[in-house]
Amino acid sequence: MALAVLDPQTGFPSASRALTATDLDGVPVILASALSGHTKGLAQDPRCSLLAGELGKGDPLAHPRITLQCLAELVDRPGPDHDRIRERFLDHHPKAALYVDFPDFRFFRLVPQSASLNGGFGRAYALGADDLVLAELPDPADWLDLQRTLRGMSDLASAVAEKLTTEKGGAWRFAGIDPAGFDLIASERQIRHEFQQPMSTSQAAYDYISSVLTVNARGIPSPKN
Amino acid sequence: MALAVLDPQTGFPSASRALTATDLDGVPVILASALSGHTKGLAQDPRCSLLAGELGKGDPLAHPRITLQCLAELVDRPGPDHDRIRERFLDHHPKAALYVDFPDFRFFRLVPQSASLNGGFGRAYALGADDLVLAELPDPADWLDLQRTLRGMSDLASAVAEKLTTEKGGAWRFAGIDPAGFDLIASERQIRHEFQQPMSTSQAAYDYISSVLTVNARGIPSPKN
Repeated sequence: MALAVLDPQTGFPSASRALTATDLDGVPVILASALSGHTKGLAQDPRCSLLAGELGKGDPLAHPRITLQCLAELVDRPGPDHDRIRERFLDHHPKAALYVDFPDFRFFRLVPQSASLNGGFGRAYALGADDLVLAELPDPADWLDLQRTLRGMSDLASAVAEKLTTEKGGAWRFAGIDPAGFDLIASERQIRHEFQQPMSTSQAAYDYISSVLTVNARGIPSPKN
Repeated sequence: MALAVLDPQTGFPSASRALTATDLDGVPVILASALSGHTKGLAQDPRCSLLAGELGKGDPLAHPRITLQCLAELVDRPGPDHDRIRERFLDHHPKAALYVDFPDFRFFRLVPQSASLNGGFGRAYALGADDLVLAELPDPADWLDLQRTLRGMSDLASAVAEKLTTEKGGAWRFAGIDPAGFDLIASERQIRHEFQQPMSTSQAAYDYISSVLTVNARGIPSPKN
């Protein structure tokens, strides 16, 4: 993903690559060293932009992508926000365990203010913060508890992935769950599955995941008995 | 490639995707609609940033990438600069022929002011404009003439690509040549081959390309007889 910040010396925008995950409310997070251009820029001006979108074959402008304009918030370390975000980030990027606890690394929450979704040539849509993130942070204890439960359930993850993707096979794992959906990862492949609407409790999310395994031919979960 | 401009309404950086090629002096160029966020941003403030770099498997931060800070110059249309850049752009992106001549499309030259090359964790290098582009625009007639000659030489292109890449096979074509090097494209694959130092004439560049076919085991072109 590309992150653009304002260069504190020149005022130029500066685009660089960033590893991202999300907080429980859908807010994108990055992990950055105090020595990085990201941190130096965001320390002086919290305005930044994220560009996300799969690259496929052919003209890159024909593929969907989204530009977010965000305000960055430094996450205090130590602190409960840091612990929650760290756990979700490592579920998404296990190899970041190598440096996440280096003394100069901090998380930033990049809180979306607006966005532009581009679905290909001439198909652009303006989005507001409400379209992108939840208004309030869900109960971390409740959702992280489910995340920890799912972390070890690789058979369930692979069975759910099998239902949700046309690419068959692979050893999938749950890489995070929040009220809006869940992430599945198998090596370089990744699925984000959004619920039709945010779940009010983690129990409802877990029930939904179980129901995916009994979807009918139209891809709609069957009513539970 | 990601391009970040300054949003004229909010002052936020705004990162989006752009199709790029280069001018004869190595300056990156983009083609943009007057309706695009790029154009609206650059019309008000020419400061922008390009992020380039191949994405590979695993951690995206482990792969080399470069961040350029550039000043954008609108290319007058009609005009000789437009014609030259248009020809080079279409050699790189033939499908852009579908829209390049739409009345609201213009090229911008994104003239690099500085850059940061990141070769992976902890390996960052600052570069100046001299490291990135030529000080003067080479003679367009001379170089475009060679480009037109090479355009039809697909057998030569495939033979040269065979020498320069370990991925064998493919129908290669020359997609552009300039004093600093040349581009080869085969479907989704692309090779940029840089000369050891810029060539003073297009004849010298052509002689070099011919000599690639007789490289020895150390990959150094043999002296010509």
